[in-house]
Amino acid sequence: MTAARPLSSLLAPRSVAIFGASNDPTRISGRSLRYYREAGFKGGLYPINPTRDTVQGLQAFPDLASVPGTVDCAVIAVPANLAIQSMEACVAKGVGGVVMFTAGFAEIGAEGRAMQERITQIAQDSGIRLCGPNCLGLFNMRIGHTPTFSSFLEEGPTPAGPLGMVTQSGAFGTHLLALAQRRGIQVGVWMSTGNEADVAVADGISFLADDPDTQAIACYVEAIKDGKLFADAVARARDTGKPVIAMKVGSSTVGAAAAASHTASLAGADAVYDAAFRQLGVERAKTPEDLINIAYACTRGRLPSSRRLAVMTMSGGAGVLMADASEEGGLELTPLSEESQKEVIDWVPFAAARNPVDVTAQVLNDPSILDKSFDLLFGKENFPAMVAFFTTWASSPQMAEPLFKSVSEAAAKYPDRYFALSAIATPEMQRRYEAAGVGLFEDPWRAVESIAAAVRAAERLNSPPLPIPPVPAELPPLPQGRIAEHEAKRILAAAGIPILDERLVTDAGQAEAAAKAIGDRLVLKIVSPDIPHKTEMGGVMLNVQAAEAGSAYNAMITRIKERAPRAHLDGVLISPMVSGGVEMILGVQNDPVFGPVVMLGLGGIFVEVLRDVTFRIAPFGIEEAHRMIGELRGRAMLEGARGQPPCDIDVLAETLSKLSVFVAEQKGRFTSIDINPLLVRPKGQGAAALDALILTPSEVAGDDEVAP
Amino acid sequence: MTAARPLSSLLAPRSVAIFGASNDPTRISGRSLRYYREAGFKGGLYPINPTRDTVQGLQAFPDLASVPGTVDCAVIAVPANLAIQSMEACVAKGVGGVVMFTAGFAEIGAEGRAMQERITQIAQDSGIRLCGPNCLGLFNMRIGHTPTFSSFLEEGPTPAGPLGMVTQSGAFGTHLLALAQRRGIQVGVWMSTGNEADVAVADGISFLADDPDTQAIACYVEAIKDGKLFADAVARARDTGKPVIAMKVGSSTVGAAAAASHTASLAGADAVYDAAFRQLGVERAKTPEDLINIAYACTRGRLPSSRRLAVMTMSGGAGVLMADASEEGGLELTPLSEESQKEVIDWVPFAAARNPVDVTAQVLNDPSILDKSFDLLFGKENFPAMVAFFTTWASSPQMAEPLFKSVSEAAAKYPDRYFALSAIATPEMQRRYEAAGVGLFEDPWRAVESIAAAVRAAERLNSPPLPIPPVPAELPPLPQGRIAEHEAKRILAAAGIPILDERLVTDAGQAEAAAKAIGDRLVLKIVSPDIPHKTEMGGVMLNVQAAEAGSAYNAMITRIKERAPRAHLDGVLISPMVSGGVEMILGVQNDPVFGPVVMLGLGGIFVEVLRDVTFRIAPFGIEEAHRMIGELRGRAMLEGARGQPPCDIDVLAETLSKLSVFVAEQKGRFTSIDINPLLVRPKGQGAAALDALILTPSEVAGDDEVAP
Repeated sequence: MTAARPLSSLLAPRSVAIFGASNDPTRISGRSLRYYREAGFKGGLYPINPTRDTVQGLQAFPDLASVPGTVDCAVIAVPANLAIQSMEACVAKGVGGVVMFTAGFAEIGAEGRAMQERITQIAQDSGIRLCGPNCLGLFNMRIGHTPTFSSFLEEGPTPAGPLGMVTQSGAFGTHLLALAQRRGIQVGVWMSTGNEADVAVADGISFLADDPDTQAIACYVEAIKDGKLFADAVARARDTGKPVIAMKVGSSTVGAAAAASHTASLAGADAVYDAAFRQLGVERAKTPEDLINIAYACTRGRLPSSRRLAVMTMSGGAGVLMADASEEGGLELTPLSEESQKEVIDWVPFAAARNPVDVTAQVLNDPSILDKSFDLLFGKENFPAMVAFFTTWASSPQMAEPLFKSVSEAAAKYPDRYFALSAIATPEMQRRYEAAGVGLFEDPWRAVESIAAAVRAAERLNSPPLPIPPVPAELPPLPQGRIAEHEAKRILAAAGIPILDERLVTDAGQAEAAAKAIGDRLVLKIVSPDIPHKTEMGGVMLNVQAAEAGSAYNAMITRIKERAPRAHLDGVLISPMVSGGVEMILGVQNDPVFGPVVMLGLGGIFVEVLRDVTFRIAPFGIEEAHRMIGELRGRAMLEGARGQPPCDIDVLAETLSKLSVFVAEQKGRFTSIDINPLLVRPKGQGAAALDALILTPSEVAGDDEVAP
Repeated sequence: MTAARPLSSLLAPRSVAIFGASNDPTRISGRSLRYYREAGFKGGLYPINPTRDTVQGLQAFPDLASVPGTVDCAVIAVPANLAIQSMEACVAKGVGGVVMFTAGFAEIGAEGRAMQERITQIAQDSGIRLCGPNCLGLFNMRIGHTPTFSSFLEEGPTPAGPLGMVTQSGAFGTHLLALAQRRGIQVGVWMSTGNEADVAVADGISFLADDPDTQAIACYVEAIKDGKLFADAVARARDTGKPVIAMKVGSSTVGAAAAASHTASLAGADAVYDAAFRQLGVERAKTPEDLINIAYACTRGRLPSSRRLAVMTMSGGAGVLMADASEEGGLELTPLSEESQKEVIDWVPFAAARNPVDVTAQVLNDPSILDKSFDLLFGKENFPAMVAFFTTWASSPQMAEPLFKSVSEAAAKYPDRYFALSAIATPEMQRRYEAAGVGLFEDPWRAVESIAAAVRAAERLNSPPLPIPPVPAELPPLPQGRIAEHEAKRILAAAGIPILDERLVTDAGQAEAAAKAIGDRLVLKIVSPDIPHKTEMGGVMLNVQAAEAGSAYNAMITRIKERAPRAHLDGVLISPMVSGGVEMILGVQNDPVFGPVVMLGLGGIFVEVLRDVTFRIAPFGIEEAHRMIGELRGRAMLEGARGQPPCDIDVLAETLSKLSVFVAEQKGRFTSIDINPLLVRPKGQGAAALDALILTPSEVAGDDEVAP
């Protein structure tokens, strides 16, 4: 549906009508028109104003129907009670995109929500792409298209730059525009999505993914409505080589009402967003400054091609600082070859030559050290990226020009390299460096941190999407209603989750027969829909000898009948007694935004005390599952900590992936799934779900014990 | 000694001589003189230059002796081989402070180190306070005292501001000056300490602590030499009400050679610095931007008086962002009273009124909402601090002046409140706000984060120093040589560490007698200097019945004699078998900078897998010990996680404090001390050191097992 309804009419129209355009260019209804005129929009521009012949010097039209020819895009700034009428006029005229500033819709309550639903319906029925309502509009400076009243354009049009920006808050989006401008990044296309009656942040990302002049996409997100649409848009941006950087607010909002399952209670919505961004390859920025600096690092015309970084400095302290930042950012300060280190020492006897390369203030006496260093690091040592600390030299009367000459020449000589300076320069000098393809950061830590983000972005763009295993052919449909433990395990086993050889028995003879087949030492568990807390009721017996299976069965049934006479008993589940390995918790919940989300945690204190859990949107493949495992703080437990043998991590990863494929297929047919624990045994011995609980929407397990 | 040798001659002299002063004001040897002239230094200024009659228009003197009257401070920029001679001239003249730019000392190797030791000796013998060598000097803009060649002053003197700065790197310190200036903070006193032959960062902090015009002290630290001196200086700054903010680089440097004890291997030097800063009340800044912004927040003429923060905004998104930042920074967004919330809604029907208070863009139509909001929040609701997001309004033609008027009037009306804006303004407008006592931050996250740091700073300044318990009167001196487990426990018990009722026995009869006295269930442990790994050798028996103590004793001795016939046996330690509670690890190492440092960790996976440990410099009191416990990620284990009863945290805290008092007293007489585990039992039942190891410098326990 998205593919069938592109945003070109909205974001790149050839003609625009402005409802209620005012002759006063300072009023909201007049501002957009003024911006168009100042930005030099080349297409048709039609003020709709029944009370005037001209508006701001342009011919005005009494209504949309009177406008000659086609109108691609319309701006609606009329009061809410007239908005629907305007939308209908747009439909009649065959308009493709509408930007609606008007407030008074879903944000004000039930009445507004109803009105918003009507305009959404009109948009969907007609194929109109609607931005808003209750938004600050958008701009595409590449063509001077400015359907916005954002104060950002008040002082005139800004150059069309390489950054695209999509924001759910118009006011905060304007603030980000101002921050970007002050940082020296020009935003080419900007869109505020307001109430998102139709067009969402994801649509903006998709449009920008296909915009050839956009190098990176920055987003401000409060809440995504459709996770799939968002995921598809980010995938599209990856396909076209555009990093997506997102700031998502609301990390402190505690998740909604307490959820039924253990899994849900561990997942704050923010943790799911965080996992989703990681999985989709979205760089999450924590603060506005982070967002702007990462966007800056990603719009230098190229991205770093690997994690190897050369750090050059004239201050030892800055070198140490940048080394700290590199380690934190996962960059590799590969040491220079012995030969190159000797060369550096030849130039400057007291230099540090390993990496960071500290050429000291000696450069002031011998500026040729600059060219030689750049050639050594980019040439001989072949570093794909460099950050060089030159403090205030970039603005000092003595050094500014020689430094610029050396740096810009090196940038031109090695055009495929990523070259950034940490330096303080005048805005003019900063623009000169940027034009030469060199980024400037005042703070050396910030420089390295931002480059690390650009490295991650490049790695994501260069990795093919991870494969997702196919859905097993013979997957049984998930039954509805109460699912007993042994049934849950049978279902999960069909999905590829390893379970033990277990038998449900209903008399002592069956118990003895089952015991013979299963092994020497057994576990007996009562199976009853009415007994959720088996252990407390004496419904679990561990380490039972096979020979005593029959008598143990009888003893258990007698005990349970005494304690819970009214409970319906399905039977007793007999399974082999296993030990050794590490207990994991796997859980699945249906996230309202992203659909089924798989949680992984280490059992025991890791989950209960440390909340050491991680999430992924289903479905995902084995490699993604390995990443998930790698995110656990206690992962060393699986790798063989404390003298234990390493666990079968491969089987754990495979299990996670298979569970994710299964739940993605069953979406909507379950409420939550918990495998607690999954015992991951020593390497080569696999894993087994020792307990499993599937809740379905039609019946949710209660916590009430059946009283005797 | 510091007290006896104040820095006033160095940092606030009445007369200054400059060795080797050049007539060329662009050369290093001429620059400082130029800066003095430009800064309008009112004291005596004496260029020492044997080849000229005047230097830069001032009368020159052939040598220091020829200068009439007293010289408080001398600047030495002569080559290293002449530095000692110049120092001696200073001694002869009675100079009180020397700033030595000259390089070629300890930083170049053994020869330079020897030369540096000589000048250090001269300084100490004569009482001269020496800044450097190999430094960029210092400045005190309050009196135009500029013994520095930092390029920061190249464009003329800067106003004397409220920030003091002490830096171990001259080049990076200059960068920080430039960053501070661009941020709108003027640095009144700046000192680069170079090789720290005499004057260290701590001395600078002490001086600034007593400088009445300094509001906050920012430091750049690579390595502190004398932890005690640093601690005393920070304490002095606390006494005089000055926050100390420090950036310490080198977090990624892995600690030196592998250390003998478990404790030492867990302590990276950086973790100790981190703990020391926390304990001393130093705000640690991670990045230069952090340092500058926290310094900015702490130099607004007042500090926030509590954690309660009012957040006001015209953008919902910015409000959520600031709420996130408040939670992360530990600030409390107390909701407004119902009555006040109603009032806000009266002004703006669609406002958010709880806190954050989102007055929306409605303020553009009714600017009176500003005054009303400020009165409501500072007045009626009595918030001690507010951050208000006004995006680009502070620079918009329409709103800039009305906004400034409202804000500055509110600041004047509530002069004891902390008032900050997140807004984008011209530098001129920013200066106007600052003059009105209002800080400006472009990034709302940064605003809240920096205010949170200012809140922490204020809390530290307002808390009296934590009491440290007295040293027990009857503390036995720590014996040297090998200390057996039971001896180690006896020593620690004397220091106040709880131990069990244990007996060392040397025959079966003694074992039986001991068992009677101790209890029903016992632990037997072999005590031998030659058997470090007791369990592997069969030297530990758990859960022995009291009645079987004699036979167990014999069995153990027989077994050990078979397996380690050459081992010297001290006997068998009999102790009660205890269970329940949480095992902690306490360790002490001698840190080269801070002296004895106490480590605390939770036993088991917490230490081994998660390295969940925390440190404090000894000695410290019970409250500090509680803070230490509170820093453990797994602290919930002590509070009664997983259905366990809460542990006796009070006794744990007391034990930590007593251990710290003991080790502070024994400094130098031990290499490391490990109590592993200390069993902390359920509340009311205390704790007990179940094993203890004290290593002394004269004999360090080896790991070699005695072969049979």
